[in-house]
Amino acid sequence: MRFFSDNAAAAHPKVLEAIADANRLDTAYDGDDWSRRLDGAFSDLFGTEVRAFWVTTGTAANCLALAALCPPYGGILCHRDAHIEVDEAGAPAFFTGGAKLILLDGEGAKLTPPAIAEACNRIRDDVHQVQPAAISITNATEYGLVYRAQEVSAIGDLAKKRRLALHMDGARLANAVASTGDSLADLTWRAGVDALSFGFVKNGGLNAEALILFRTELADEIAVRRKRAGHLLSKGRYLAAQLLAMLEGDLWLDNARAANGAAQQLAKAAPQRLVYPVEANELFLKVSEEEAERLRAMGADFYEWGPGEIRFVTSWDAQAASVEKLAAAIASL
Amino acid sequence: MRFFSDNAAAAHPKVLEAIADANRLDTAYDGDDWSRRLDGAFSDLFGTEVRAFWVTTGTAANCLALAALCPPYGGILCHRDAHIEVDEAGAPAFFTGGAKLILLDGEGAKLTPPAIAEACNRIRDDVHQVQPAAISITNATEYGLVYRAQEVSAIGDLAKKRRLALHMDGARLANAVASTGDSLADLTWRAGVDALSFGFVKNGGLNAEALILFRTELADEIAVRRKRAGHLLSKGRYLAAQLLAMLEGDLWLDNARAANGAAQQLAKAAPQRLVYPVEANELFLKVSEEEAERLRAMGADFYEWGPGEIRFVTSWDAQAASVEKLAAAIASL
Amino acid sequence: MRFFSDNAAAAHPKVLEAIADANRLDTAYDGDDWSRRLDGAFSDLFGTEVRAFWVTTGTAANCLALAALCPPYGGILCHRDAHIEVDEAGAPAFFTGGAKLILLDGEGAKLTPPAIAEACNRIRDDVHQVQPAAISITNATEYGLVYRAQEVSAIGDLAKKRRLALHMDGARLANAVASTGDSLADLTWRAGVDALSFGFVKNGGLNAEALILFRTELADEIAVRRKRAGHLLSKGRYLAAQLLAMLEGDLWLDNARAANGAAQQLAKAAPQRLVYPVEANELFLKVSEEEAERLRAMGADFYEWGPGEIRFVTSWDAQAASVEKLAAAIASL
Amino acid sequence: MRFFSDNAAAAHPKVLEAIADANRLDTAYDGDDWSRRLDGAFSDLFGTEVRAFWVTTGTAANCLALAALCPPYGGILCHRDAHIEVDEAGAPAFFTGGAKLILLDGEGAKLTPPAIAEACNRIRDDVHQVQPAAISITNATEYGLVYRAQEVSAIGDLAKKRRLALHMDGARLANAVASTGDSLADLTWRAGVDALSFGFVKNGGLNAEALILFRTELADEIAVRRKRAGHLLSKGRYLAAQLLAMLEGDLWLDNARAANGAAQQLAKAAPQRLVYPVEANELFLKVSEEEAERLRAMGADFYEWGPGEIRFVTSWDAQAASVEKLAAAIASL
Repeated sequence: MRFFSDNAAAAHPKVLEAIADANRLDTAYDGDDWSRRLDGAFSDLFGTEVRAFWVTTGTAANCLALAALCPPYGGILCHRDAHIEVDEAGAPAFFTGGAKLILLDGEGAKLTPPAIAEACNRIRDDVHQVQPAAISITNATEYGLVYRAQEVSAIGDLAKKRRLALHMDGARLANAVASTGDSLADLTWRAGVDALSFGFVKNGGLNAEALILFRTELADEIAVRRKRAGHLLSKGRYLAAQLLAMLEGDLWLDNARAANGAAQQLAKAAPQRLVYPVEANELFLKVSEEEAERLRAMGADFYEWGPGEIRFVTSWDAQAASVEKLAAAIASL
Repeated sequence: MRFFSDNAAAAHPKVLEAIADANRLDTAYDGDDWSRRLDGAFSDLFGTEVRAFWVTTGTAANCLALAALCPPYGGILCHRDAHIEVDEAGAPAFFTGGAKLILLDGEGAKLTPPAIAEACNRIRDDVHQVQPAAISITNATEYGLVYRAQEVSAIGDLAKKRRLALHMDGARLANAVASTGDSLADLTWRAGVDALSFGFVKNGGLNAEALILFRTELADEIAVRRKRAGHLLSKGRYLAAQLLAMLEGDLWLDNARAANGAAQQLAKAAPQRLVYPVEANELFLKVSEEEAERLRAMGADFYEWGPGEIRFVTSWDAQAASVEKLAAAIASL
Repeated sequence: MRFFSDNAAAAHPKVLEAIADANRLDTAYDGDDWSRRLDGAFSDLFGTEVRAFWVTTGTAANCLALAALCPPYGGILCHRDAHIEVDEAGAPAFFTGGAKLILLDGEGAKLTPPAIAEACNRIRDDVHQVQPAAISITNATEYGLVYRAQEVSAIGDLAKKRRLALHMDGARLANAVASTGDSLADLTWRAGVDALSFGFVKNGGLNAEALILFRTELADEIAVRRKRAGHLLSKGRYLAAQLLAMLEGDLWLDNARAANGAAQQLAKAAPQRLVYPVEANELFLKVSEEEAERLRAMGADFYEWGPGEIRFVTSWDAQAASVEKLAAAIASL
Repeated sequence: MRFFSDNAAAAHPKVLEAIADANRLDTAYDGDDWSRRLDGAFSDLFGTEVRAFWVTTGTAANCLALAALCPPYGGILCHRDAHIEVDEAGAPAFFTGGAKLILLDGEGAKLTPPAIAEACNRIRDDVHQVQPAAISITNATEYGLVYRAQEVSAIGDLAKKRRLALHMDGARLANAVASTGDSLADLTWRAGVDALSFGFVKNGGLNAEALILFRTELADEIAVRRKRAGHLLSKGRYLAAQLLAMLEGDLWLDNARAANGAAQQLAKAAPQRLVYPVEANELFLKVSEEEAERLRAMGADFYEWGPGEIRFVTSWDAQAASVEKLAAAIASL
């Protein structure tokens, strides 16, 4: 019963097959047949012209995007619990050349237009204070909540008004789509998102993530920045092939649905213990230390989030038996 | 007859098998079973205690190492044709925070102690000029020449005397070992190398390279820098497994021997055309434009290196038929 | 009645005299007679061997020091209202190469050992989170409070225990000395401070500040970083002469006493309105908008700090008449 | 007879007077009366609308300008002997966030359009090589040669064609104007220069240099970058007043003429020893070690430039007696 992280899960068999299929001589870097199909495949998926880049981590996707959207002397508005602030070792400052994360509060790691506006208003418009240049939101959030299309859109409108770029960390965007039923287009470019880190690794991928640019004029700069950061792999076809496999037959969506479904099943086991509503594939439960111990004794593996809180993350490959067993264990507390 | 680059070659079947074997649930990042075996496996291979890190590109390996060996305000002595100068898009400056590459001349992209000493002596010892802090050499070089153990050792001695760190870009170190017969230990740490980028992707790997620290006290810093640069993959086991597969039964050495052998075979076809002696898996030939055209017409693919020069690179999977055919074509010019 | 900022005040006549005296041919940069006397003069002043560097701004002094004390991937613990966070346009990130300011709370912009310890404890000790490497405190603080020697010492002890470097922003250190009666030595190196930005410009200087290193082994690095940041002036003697003039006969202390005295006089005019005790040369008063308007109408110039709060800063040259008039105006509200 | 550097000279009395006149209470930073007159004064001088910023060093002026003209991943074409390459401790990389200086050859540190074009053509247009984004030329050059207006213009035309920004390091631009008789306008913006470091300190100033933007839309960015680099002095009026004093009655031009005149006088003493024609205020002479020794014995102070070469720099305050004496000494060799 390992529900520690969706990073722990195996890759989907179709992803491995795709890698094996790509195992032949081809052009190096991103000149191969697979890589060259990415722009088209993702443009079809999003229903608009995009430029798509493979990278191997969400941190790289996030921070390359932020570097193109925010100057070294600018600020990026994000939630205090955002992955870029809490779990990327200062990578945003490294990639941007020193941009500042301006930290906002908000329930369940969600930003709202009033919180953003208020943060902007607090900043004196002079050269002494770092001026905001971009907003970054995470969907689904670090607490497993989702932004619906209209929520993103409200932030996008504010961004436009304030001349701020909008970045979305979509490490679990698939889960947000599966949860909201909103389209990828509505959740991103139609809502004003400029650049998206589209996660696949947590969702059944092996080691390929996608950086999607809706502002296609940034593509040349991103291509250079990717190389310069050591993220242009010499045999890129093995990454591109993974992404294409995930898009094939909407595997990405099926996987997300499976993970979300498992999370819902667990949520039902102890609705009164939930710290947040379960909207994607993460559960945060209130438990005593003694209860946590008992769960562990029953074979459950999870993340101790903080005092009296534990986190479970379900994966695309959550096996029915395992989920049921954990649900029962939780219910038995 | 594709001899454009060893990056174009497929991955060795054993590497793919290893990836497939690693396709199960395990701890994220580098906490998995495979990653945790790397230090031991590479320590055994080098005959000394090392710390080994997987990364996905040679650029990342090179520049993470250089960032730990050279302060932002320091200089790195390297050859004018070094990969870090010519083909990494300024990544050394990015990773180090602005360190300067100090460019030296030398036959076939090789540095010599006199050239290094002379470059150091030219620099005034004051705050106005960037002071050298490290040396970086490539073995085998960008022109397919190799440093023998005693040559590295001479540079290592000078480095020690001048208090300079020594980095080796070993994108094709396997080929240098196969060519010289010198041991990995003699070519690296015994000769004074502090950190090594040990290449596997050009040599039959899929997307895993190794950064080897002989100065093990740098490991904590490298671990942080790797994460901060977006190079800590969330499912690291797929990289570690590749490296372990390459070490298994000295696959890395067999592959390099195969590539070197093919290069020798080609070299014999036209010894008088060689720009440099062929010591690894690269050939640079003098040809007229018309001759280049004829080779192309015969189905050969290669890199136009410069006016009147073309480059062939042989790979681990060079097929006998293909090599013979190309050798015949060259001989027929 | 201009009490907007101590940056607005003129320079002390002795400082101008010193500049005029230095107006002759001498060695460029910091090779002149004046610059070469700085180490000795400040070592005498502090009663220990220090290395002293002139710079032209507090931001440069702060951030050069921080760059030497904290790696690009490290964190600097400071108050949420610290000048380095609020008023230096992201300079700490620029000079350090991306270090992160970790923001703490504390009454009147003061840090306490428990707050520091708690902040450290919240940070997971792994590569995903930025690890603290330094503490920066401001004395007197941005709200005009002072750290006494034993308070600095308590922070210094914690810093040592946690292996954190300790920086002091002493833009108004003179005022803190004048206020506490504690010695420069007790407030700095005896209390564990590693590097100090010693302010003179707000205290009657023209454009010279001092960066004082108690860890003298950092001097070579600071010298290089100063040049590299464009802060090595070609005619440094005009800066060094200013600093020497400020030290002569303890002019720095006299000036600070004068400024503090004026602040005390104003404080007595409306003790019940004070937001913080007045311990240096800044007053924060609670006033209604209408009251602020009346003060302004009476000819007072001040900073609107926030809703219902205004700030007055007194200077070394606060004229008795002007201070009395303002005190009366405040009392009359 | 000190002719070591124009940085060693005193400041002009009018500059000191201006500082003394500015010694009263005014707004901090660059909000004071003097600073606010700079844009107008320099716009008048150049005959076009410019934005003018005071800074304290040529390195700051050069590198702030380059940071606005070249992205972190871009290249700056400059001469191998340019001050930014040789004497600024890597500041261009620091300010730009890692941009690369691409070094060109050229007689007397001068760039020519063919040399620039050839350097650009050598660079493969791909993401692996750093692409040039800007050109930087020095007028007068580091060897005391001058670019005439039409020479700058030819480079400006090429810059436009290649979409490269054009920066001029004018540490000794006054000397170039005095030498060529070409107008400031013709030597800069009419010739395509985007940003200019206009030197005053070597020419009789105390510690104020000017950064002039002909592309005025860069002003906001420069203002932020100046602050962020610690170069926004809190009492800016003392810098602005210096610059205004230098412009008053064309003091800058008178000073340059005096320095150039002295250099011409020296040049006539030994025309056959000149390494380069003397076009500004620097002389490079071929002398044997024994001759250098004799000059020194006669009381001359100079810079040993290289084997068999010595450098003299004349200043605005070159005294007739001193120049004559040195000329006689040189002639006597």
